[in-house]
Amino acid sequence: MQEEHKQLKLFFEPRAVAFVGISAKTGALAFNALENLLACGYEGRIYPVNPNADDILGLKAYPDVKSLPGPVDLAVISTRRSLVPEIVKECVEKGIRAIIVIGQGFSDAGDEEGRQLEEKVVRIARAGGARILGPNTIGVTNPFFNFTTSFLRQLRIEKLPIALICQSGIFFGGFCDGLRLLGKGIDIGNASDVGVADCLEYFEDDEDVRLIVVHIEGVRRSGEGRRILEVAGRVSKRKPIIVFKTGRGRQAASAIRSHTASLVGDDDVWDAAFEQCGVLRARDLDELHDLVRAFCNLLPTKVENVAIVTLSGGMGVMALDACDEYGLRAATLSAETLQKLREMLPAWLEVKNPVDIFPAIMSAEEKGEVLMRSVEAVLSDENVDALLLVAGTWLEVVAPPLSDVLKAAGSFGKPVIWCPYLDWAFNVSVEDVEQKLKEKGVENVAALPTPERAVRALAALQKYVEFRKN
Amino acid sequence: MQEEHKQLKLFFEPRAVAFVGISAKTGALAFNALENLLACGYEGRIYPVNPNADDILGLKAYPDVKSLPGPVDLAVISTRRSLVPEIVKECVEKGIRAIIVIGQGFSDAGDEEGRQLEEKVVRIARAGGARILGPNTIGVTNPFFNFTTSFLRQLRIEKLPIALICQSGIFFGGFCDGLRLLGKGIDIGNASDVGVADCLEYFEDDEDVRLIVVHIEGVRRSGEGRRILEVAGRVSKRKPIIVFKTGRGRQAASAIRSHTASLVGDDDVWDAAFEQCGVLRARDLDELHDLVRAFCNLLPTKVENVAIVTLSGGMGVMALDACDEYGLRAATLSAETLQKLREMLPAWLEVKNPVDIFPAIMSAEEKGEVLMRSVEAVLSDENVDALLLVAGTWLEVVAPPLSDVLKAAGSFGKPVIWCPYLDWAFNVSVEDVEQKLKEKGVENVAALPTPERAVRALAALQKYVEFRKN
Repeated sequence: MQEEHKQLKLFFEPRAVAFVGISAKTGALAFNALENLLACGYEGRIYPVNPNADDILGLKAYPDVKSLPGPVDLAVISTRRSLVPEIVKECVEKGIRAIIVIGQGFSDAGDEEGRQLEEKVVRIARAGGARILGPNTIGVTNPFFNFTTSFLRQLRIEKLPIALICQSGIFFGGFCDGLRLLGKGIDIGNASDVGVADCLEYFEDDEDVRLIVVHIEGVRRSGEGRRILEVAGRVSKRKPIIVFKTGRGRQAASAIRSHTASLVGDDDVWDAAFEQCGVLRARDLDELHDLVRAFCNLLPTKVENVAIVTLSGGMGVMALDACDEYGLRAATLSAETLQKLREMLPAWLEVKNPVDIFPAIMSAEEKGEVLMRSVEAVLSDENVDALLLVAGTWLEVVAPPLSDVLKAAGSFGKPVIWCPYLDWAFNVSVEDVEQKLKEKGVENVAALPTPERAVRALAALQKYVEFRKN
Repeated sequence: MQEEHKQLKLFFEPRAVAFVGISAKTGALAFNALENLLACGYEGRIYPVNPNADDILGLKAYPDVKSLPGPVDLAVISTRRSLVPEIVKECVEKGIRAIIVIGQGFSDAGDEEGRQLEEKVVRIARAGGARILGPNTIGVTNPFFNFTTSFLRQLRIEKLPIALICQSGIFFGGFCDGLRLLGKGIDIGNASDVGVADCLEYFEDDEDVRLIVVHIEGVRRSGEGRRILEVAGRVSKRKPIIVFKTGRGRQAASAIRSHTASLVGDDDVWDAAFEQCGVLRARDLDELHDLVRAFCNLLPTKVENVAIVTLSGGMGVMALDACDEYGLRAATLSAETLQKLREMLPAWLEVKNPVDIFPAIMSAEEKGEVLMRSVEAVLSDENVDALLLVAGTWLEVVAPPLSDVLKAAGSFGKPVIWCPYLDWAFNVSVEDVEQKLKEKGVENVAALPTPERAVRALAALQKYVEFRKN
């Protein structure tokens, strides 16, 4: 195990990397991984290998792998498929023990030749003690080491405590809006050798990583599914694992065979298995986005009883619908809390959870105070485990501003989800407020777009807490 | 009926409007409806009524309704609740036949007084031949008449061919990202008098309106649900109706009693009834957003067989999962189409639907040409009813740009949904591309954020087409 870890580490933290078959073409439309790496600030040695160039991007280029002057931890091969087995052979002869095969056209291709080429590559690597990542992969990205092999430009790289294991490069391009890169990433592609279970084990002990996200289409080998679930069951006791298993239906199964050459398996079986080993399953891209945001920002504490403070009665109702759907309860507020709220609200208003503070916000001079006091009142209530706050970004311009209120809310140690809604006429965006939250070091607050999605994410948090308890 | 139409028209197109109890306070945090109306360019007469001011926002103010100099079509009352019955009485004596009661604290309040005040208001209005909108409403907005009574500032008002009937002012503040205002809007609030069915009938004949969106929490009176469904069943044969019925579960029911004083009813019954009368039901805010976008931009034509052209094999798989879930088929492409595609794609690639054009985009010099030819190939195929295109906004910088490709795609008369994904490194946003689409007069193209949501919207389109056929 320890040895395997060391070897996988070569993919994430190579001291020297060779880019074999790297193009001399640069610019945003050239998909040049080397150019992206140079923009990262990587401090290891970089060797371009290309027999038709003397230097590439200011780096001396070598005609082949055997000419490389020093030891190399990682080779990234992006030649056409027919050349790959020979290059892999050169790599193992050079003592390289981690190899990424970027190109497509192996077992993902429609032809027998591709399948055989992949088998050959794996055979050569295994015989030489090397591991293969791919083929059909974007490789690895590791902001903690200023390292990437991605030929897609990253818009935003942050040292988030997240590991992403994926079977499609799409996730290196970005998640849905708002989350561009997810800390460390590894694209297993065709998973001819390095697979999900290997990566899970690697991240189990990685102290940079608090949350593991997995996108998987299927498995390649018999027994692989079982091993993934065994490892996941162990790891998820230490760190939450969010899985986005695609290839659920009949129509997807055949497409996946040609996308990553995987067998999708019976979706109900996956479902039951994930459930059993404490893995949280996202059903679609939006849910994946939401769960990542929630688990990245919120501490996993009990979320049975949710308080809803809202500037829209209508959205309070939507939140309750979601509570019914996802099995959470609207908290019963204590008499003391209700009294605190009544002091701010019109006498005729029946104060209860959801707490509709719009009437008070409308009429109060100190709009920020109403917001702050409402939020503090419900979070001080021991009947309340978590808060859903529906409030517009425009509340950033009142005093105290929304970001201060969210900072105060987060300090209660209970999960807080903020739905930024009911906006108008002020040039304050969700991104502005999130930037403020970051600057202020706000913890335990996540922003999600709708009440339904917020409640679904809280329910996942509760599910994980339950699993950890047992 | 004709008479009722004329009377409801007073709410949407008043030649003269009185704002009773309007404040002299202005500015973005003053929630001043009059200020918002003046910003709209309304050309009718405006009478502020406020005994404590001589003029408001440059308009002569009157001490009470009876002092108003000319005839008034519509009164908008925003005083505290106890004053409202007396003012309504003055209004009907003045001959005003349309009255909006903005304030809260009527049947939505927790007390008996509120309930009685509302009853009194309705009684007085009915006796005087006037209709009441509200209480507890933001009123009306009509960009076709440069008119609004909303105290929430509008960020973007457009003459979209959409009517919104809602029971919560939240929808006047904005939908989810991207759709700020929805053409004509009416907030029925407590629905003490004007209700959903009245509004549906009004919009049935409104030539500005092609699509009707309804947010409803419940009904006030026995028999009202039946009437809504009767009218909806008739109207939806002419125009699609999208309903977002909240208050689905047990927990929501009691909250709704105090939000809009409505009875939620049995959710399964609503479900079955909507189904029967051809009404499309959105299950949450995101789906509401998506269906509005889809029905607003796409012609309702057959969508049984969907072609997927994608820059990400992984997202093609997600689209297929959604096809399985929502009952659509991935189109079987004709031999001719496959041949056209093969000419652009690597020889080893098994070409089929979903069509993964990323390998070709990666290597081609003419990236825009690959995109254009792929899209035209599948849309020319008679086996294909609709297109889902997964393509990054960055393709706007190639030639021909993405927006030209979408324009060409829309011209086939088949619904096209574009998922803007796989972005990096270019400062092109979804909004930029959408702006271009608008400038170019692109039709039959809608942008939605994920493949799953795109397929769900296409399935709703197909459902409506089926309903209209029968």
